Amino acid sequence: MGLTMTLADEVLGGSRRALARAITAVENDAASAQEVLAALFSHTGRAHLIGVTGSPGTGKSSLVNQLALEYRKRGKTIAIIAVDPTSPFTGGAILGDRIRMRDLSGDSGVFIRSMATRGSLGGLARATADVVKVLDAAGFDLIMIETVGAGQSEVDIARHAHTVLVIETPGMGDDVQAIKAGILEIADILVVNKSDDPRIQNAVRALKAMLDLAHPGEQRMEMHHGKLMQAAMLPPQPAESGTAWEIPLITTNALTGEGVAEVADSIETHRAYLRDSGEMQRRERARIASELEAMLREVLVTRLLAAVSQDEIAALVEQIAQRDITPQKAVDALLMHLNAVRS
Amino acid sequence: MGLTMTLADEVLGGSRRALARAITAVENDAASAQEVLAALFSHTGRAHLIGVTGSPGTGKSSLVNQLALEYRKRGKTIAIIAVDPTSPFTGGAILGDRIRMRDLSGDSGVFIRSMATRGSLGGLARATADVVKVLDAAGFDLIMIETVGAGQSEVDIARHAHTVLVIETPGMGDDVQAIKAGILEIADILVVNKSDDPRIQNAVRALKAMLDLAHPGEQRMEMHHGKLMQAAMLPPQPAESGTAWEIPLITTNALTGEGVAEVADSIETHRAYLRDSGEMQRRERARIASELEAMLREVLVTRLLAAVSQDEIAALVEQIAQRDITPQKAVDALLMHLNAVRS
Repeated sequence: MGLTMTLADEVLGGSRRALARAITAVENDAASAQEVLAALFSHTGRAHLIGVTGSPGTGKSSLVNQLALEYRKRGKTIAIIAVDPTSPFTGGAILGDRIRMRDLSGDSGVFIRSMATRGSLGGLARATADVVKVLDAAGFDLIMIETVGAGQSEVDIARHAHTVLVIETPGMGDDVQAIKAGILEIADILVVNKSDDPRIQNAVRALKAMLDLAHPGEQRMEMHHGKLMQAAMLPPQPAESGTAWEIPLITTNALTGEGVAEVADSIETHRAYLRDSGEMQRRERARIASELEAMLREVLVTRLLAAVSQDEIAALVEQIAQRDITPQKAVDALLMHLNAVRS
Repeated sequence: MGLTMTLADEVLGGSRRALARAITAVENDAASAQEVLAALFSHTGRAHLIGVTGSPGTGKSSLVNQLALEYRKRGKTIAIIAVDPTSPFTGGAILGDRIRMRDLSGDSGVFIRSMATRGSLGGLARATADVVKVLDAAGFDLIMIETVGAGQSEVDIARHAHTVLVIETPGMGDDVQAIKAGILEIADILVVNKSDDPRIQNAVRALKAMLDLAHPGEQRMEMHHGKLMQAAMLPPQPAESGTAWEIPLITTNALTGEGVAEVADSIETHRAYLRDSGEMQRRERARIASELEAMLREVLVTRLLAAVSQDEIAALVEQIAQRDITPQKAVDALLMHLNAVRS
């Protein structure tokens, strides 16, 4: 206990080594992780969380680098969590730290961490949420969560972040267009990178047309569901004129830095909007409810399975494999152990 | 009950209209879905499940079309589930059915269904597993599950499928290379599409080098974890010479059909390998255990939350938002209701 408290204290005191150790503990779900998180929790809630997403090849990482440099110029500290599209099996992080360190190394106002996707559904989302808490408590002004992917990972980002940046780029194929339509709906700010590409004007035009079709204010809410969510949600904001957020579309060149200051300005504007409109509170509560529900799922299944013998599980799986019983029947059988699971 | 049994009976009798209705019920998790699935379950376990994945722009859909045509020539029936990278919010399926129908329409031996990704973590995986069961019971010889994405969706495919095809293409950027390294590890068969691309030889060389680094036999197992999984798993196969699966690398041109017959042959070879080595049983049991665990999670959290008032949930979320209590404390409070949740 004494040692762990010291680790949390060191994190709060600004030690970068302690920070790295705390994150590793949290990532690995080490025994000490829950204590560290509990000790740090009351110090969270200050950082602005920025999600950055987009397809591979959009120059997303370069843009995140540039944004970090821009924020440093403005005197802000920044942490970057790069969720890498690497192996769920070996857990290696191929991209990230190494490449990044060229521009940003030696600056204690910047902290970069790569996280690899893991095999377990929801495992990464949980770990990311916890790492965000550690960085938040450590006092970073901005935390950027960057993912590559198409689909679920973007939705998860939207759950964690206050402001979501979607990065697009000119001239990709038809199926990429389809992805765009999907992830546009989680965007608070839309960035079209590679402004030197001759197809930039076409891309901007197409994206503007897509934006006109989307109604982000309404749709964003549909993402959150379940009883726990519903209870946690504040009533929706009326979309009165002047209070609704209009998604800006900003063109950038991550190589030259063109447009990057504008993106940083836009993030600040969005932050002010969130605060003034009450939307920040809504998003915070949705995020908390989502996290609670995920934690409940984990602890409930863990407790139940702890009450069941390996032999019984193996027998049920075998009966399903033989098509003697349905999966639903097996679930019913496992639920018989609920009596043994009271807290 | 009578009506629903009729729907299952009609599916088993070969009615395409009933099949479509059953799938819709399962996709929407309609009240009738569990009955239909229960009635069909004993008829599942015959189809060979093929997962097809790869980055956007690899020509994956065209290749799946070509494979379907090839299997039709061989007298096999085939169902295609295209998991589309579309909006988790509006649920629309942009790609898919329409485009596909040009080559394959009017053939009752082919059934194509698009499924859109949804907001809920794990929701799509569950729905896909259930749709596979319906198609399996309906008697299709082969079921292809096609996803676009980088990350979790590939892992989910590997959980559902017997044989996983990973589609690559020459000449993509650095971060795409990183993705390749990740998804290579779930490949049973590696396909390099666009064999007319001048960079094809370089791509094949690079992928062969990556394959040499990977040890799929070992790593595939690490994906499955948790107590339920462990209990369900048969002991691993010894990687004796002659019994291990060597991942073939096949070049194709989905536009001309070049290499497609070879891919179909390779799938058959892999199927025979799975059967003869005992690996098929291992994968089936892992899949069942994974599904059971997901079902348990859902039912447990649903039951617990049904015993908690909306007001209590809202109060806990508010206390967390104010940093008065940690999420862990809120989970502990919710678990107090476990007494009310006995089956």
